[in-house]
Amino acid sequence: MQRVRIKKLFESPKEQEIFLCAWVRTNRAQAQFGFLSVNDGSIITNLQVVYDQKLENFEEISKFRTGVSVAVTGKVVLTPEAKQPLELHATKVEMLGDCPEDYPIQPKRHTREFLRDNAHLRPRTNLFNAVFRIRSVAAMAVHSYFQSNGYLYVHTPLITCADCEGSDQMFKITTLDFNNLPYDEDGKVDFSKDLFGKQAWITGSGQLQGETFAMAFGDIYTFGPTFRTENSNTQTHANEFWMIEPEMAFCDLEGLMDIEEEMLKYVIKYVIDNCPAEIDFCDQFVEKGLKTKLTDLLNAKFTRISHHDVVDILLKANQKWEFTPNYNDDIAKEHERYITEYFNGPVFITNWPKDIKAWYMKLNPDGKTVAAVDLVVPKAGELMGGSQREENLDVLLKKMDDLHIDKEGIDWYLDTRRYGGCVHSGFGMGFERLIMYLTGIENIRDVIPYPRTPKNCEY
Amino acid sequence: MQRVRIKKLFESPKEQEIFLCAWVRTNRAQAQFGFLSVNDGSIITNLQVVYDQKLENFEEISKFRTGVSVAVTGKVVLTPEAKQPLELHATKVEMLGDCPEDYPIQPKRHTREFLRDNAHLRPRTNLFNAVFRIRSVAAMAVHSYFQSNGYLYVHTPLITCADCEGSDQMFKITTLDFNNLPYDEDGKVDFSKDLFGKQAWITGSGQLQGETFAMAFGDIYTFGPTFRTENSNTQTHANEFWMIEPEMAFCDLEGLMDIEEEMLKYVIKYVIDNCPAEIDFCDQFVEKGLKTKLTDLLNAKFTRISHHDVVDILLKANQKWEFTPNYNDDIAKEHERYITEYFNGPVFITNWPKDIKAWYMKLNPDGKTVAAVDLVVPKAGELMGGSQREENLDVLLKKMDDLHIDKEGIDWYLDTRRYGGCVHSGFGMGFERLIMYLTGIENIRDVIPYPRTPKNCEY
Repeated sequence: MQRVRIKKLFESPKEQEIFLCAWVRTNRAQAQFGFLSVNDGSIITNLQVVYDQKLENFEEISKFRTGVSVAVTGKVVLTPEAKQPLELHATKVEMLGDCPEDYPIQPKRHTREFLRDNAHLRPRTNLFNAVFRIRSVAAMAVHSYFQSNGYLYVHTPLITCADCEGSDQMFKITTLDFNNLPYDEDGKVDFSKDLFGKQAWITGSGQLQGETFAMAFGDIYTFGPTFRTENSNTQTHANEFWMIEPEMAFCDLEGLMDIEEEMLKYVIKYVIDNCPAEIDFCDQFVEKGLKTKLTDLLNAKFTRISHHDVVDILLKANQKWEFTPNYNDDIAKEHERYITEYFNGPVFITNWPKDIKAWYMKLNPDGKTVAAVDLVVPKAGELMGGSQREENLDVLLKKMDDLHIDKEGIDWYLDTRRYGGCVHSGFGMGFERLIMYLTGIENIRDVIPYPRTPKNCEY
Repeated sequence: MQRVRIKKLFESPKEQEIFLCAWVRTNRAQAQFGFLSVNDGSIITNLQVVYDQKLENFEEISKFRTGVSVAVTGKVVLTPEAKQPLELHATKVEMLGDCPEDYPIQPKRHTREFLRDNAHLRPRTNLFNAVFRIRSVAAMAVHSYFQSNGYLYVHTPLITCADCEGSDQMFKITTLDFNNLPYDEDGKVDFSKDLFGKQAWITGSGQLQGETFAMAFGDIYTFGPTFRTENSNTQTHANEFWMIEPEMAFCDLEGLMDIEEEMLKYVIKYVIDNCPAEIDFCDQFVEKGLKTKLTDLLNAKFTRISHHDVVDILLKANQKWEFTPNYNDDIAKEHERYITEYFNGPVFITNWPKDIKAWYMKLNPDGKTVAAVDLVVPKAGELMGGSQREENLDVLLKKMDDLHIDKEGIDWYLDTRRYGGCVHSGFGMGFERLIMYLTGIENIRDVIPYPRTPKNCEY
């Protein structure tokens, strides 16, 4: 008999003989029969297995501990009156792998800290079963959105030798022996002896390479791991995370916002449709009202307003600010919160002061602001950041000169403006931030399988 | 009018007024009319735009050079007699971005070497338009196969501090200043001052972490970038590439082969169905017979044969070998070629000598071989490698002792055998190798957007 997965049973409940493999979550043994609650990881829901004295190894089964892996043959029985629509009446239960009494994941409440210290076992809990299933399905949703809209998925390189992107925030990589480094005449480490013949880093963004592909394929996206060296121990920082960076030719700031909104709604709907049990679980145990928050966003009108006008509203607000709103400054967390409540929904904040945004962003006709946009959403703050890119080579070169950015190393990038350049735009979305939004989880360490943070690189 | 993409036009040819943006590939201007061949990156096929004297900027359009970006408004006219099913009769043609005469990508044949030196512009050629489109669609096919079969996509970490995996082949990463390194009392570099408080690398595999997730979710896969420090300048080696590593609980070697075969056929069919023009192009200009090769594989019976029996066949062959086949050795390229021709199709070679395979592979009852399997396919050699894993903790520990593998750093991994362990299996597939197989491209540098190889880390 072919092994079935539990999700399939719940998807189309019917009486049938089946065979499955799973792990025991609990075992309630009584004198003449007993109940195993088992999970095979295909869905957060556990399946109830009923076993009785007729089984020759009844005594043995009665002693199966939490964590044991089992093979079960039996008959699916529909139970319309019960909490679950079906249960499995076992005709055979076999232990595949034992689990000792000291198994850390007992059927009780564990703290998130304890589970972080057992990151290799926490996927076996309901919470992380739900979180990592949602993460997986959300990743598929991202691919599905872009591919069905004709975007090219491009694997931009992670290793880079161009340090124009802020190498102080990048990890250095090397094949040299740290305790036997070669030095040049000036007493500096001689990277000409390294694998690439020069100093190399792992990059924090694929945007520049992404732009070169957008100039050939029109619409492209990246989706891959990203690294920052930030020595920051907060709930929202990790040194390794995943990022999505779409880039669209022939697309201006308004078009960019259309895409961001459509993509976000698509991903949320996809996850709600494909992970109903997992979303319900998070709604119940992680963030009360999660499901309403998500469906509200699906139906929300996204406000579009300039940074200037946002500061106007903030200054007029009858509110005591920790950080005084300023036309030349960034928007603080408290401001983001206020403005999403003010508009009762997601807000695109556009046209930011040029001095606080990146050099490649499109200078607006006012000469003071750039065509950048941050999307802030209720309860979570900034979810995406993007901009129209400066397609005018002269303006871009002047900006790079002003900021002392090395042009030689990225002359290839400037070719996108020399050869058939056009209006184009792109954005970046931190994937973990999206997962935190989708699950209600507040600490980034709990949405990454094996998080890397300062002083923390276990597993 | 909303901008349409050229692929849509070819997908459902009909007379309509449209607006599009694209890049000029060629311009054949005559006295009273002219033809622009334009491409917008949505499909390899170019669209013919007819323009004539009635346009007020006719003279200007006549001078548009290759590479210019344009916005075109006009009427789609069906041309059932012509090579292409439709053309666009322009009512308005506007230049968006000029392109100078020295544009390197002229409409003529360029060598692959020249295009590697212009990696940021090569996506604008037909060849790389096809190759990178196939790469993108194949990536989607991989996700689609695993997700539709209930697998969990897991982002295993790239940064690792466990050097059990062969740290000599891994890049070291650091945030320390190379020219001002801290040293400990013994005069060694003091990594306790580094971001993670110890020496760190970027890993070459997510398998071990993947196994921990398979023990919770049943079926999982990874798909992400991978790094090797190999100082090797061949057609098939790169220092950065992408890899897919599925891992399945309750799955033995036979089940593993079923999955490998099903997945490969699914991906190939998906690419043929979704990139017909691109596959045709590669068939015509890269590998004659490519399409037949791919459809043959779809219909092929995959042979399953042990390493021992393969060596038997090789030794009996009336053939002069460069490397003499040996029951204790690996299979050489020439042997792979012979054996796929012998069976006229793909071959799973199973049960390899334990000493030439990895420590975590399942020891067979003979005590000499492990339950490993390599899939070799006609014309491309090895495409995937996998194994059943050693689920018996005692056997595994002994193997680790014999090979002096540090157990302390990966005690978490051993927990998969302590707590509800089970028969499980997994494989790895180099994504670039798959793309080379799908396109006929012979050099790995030509299937990676920005390849990283020794002494080569541009862009």
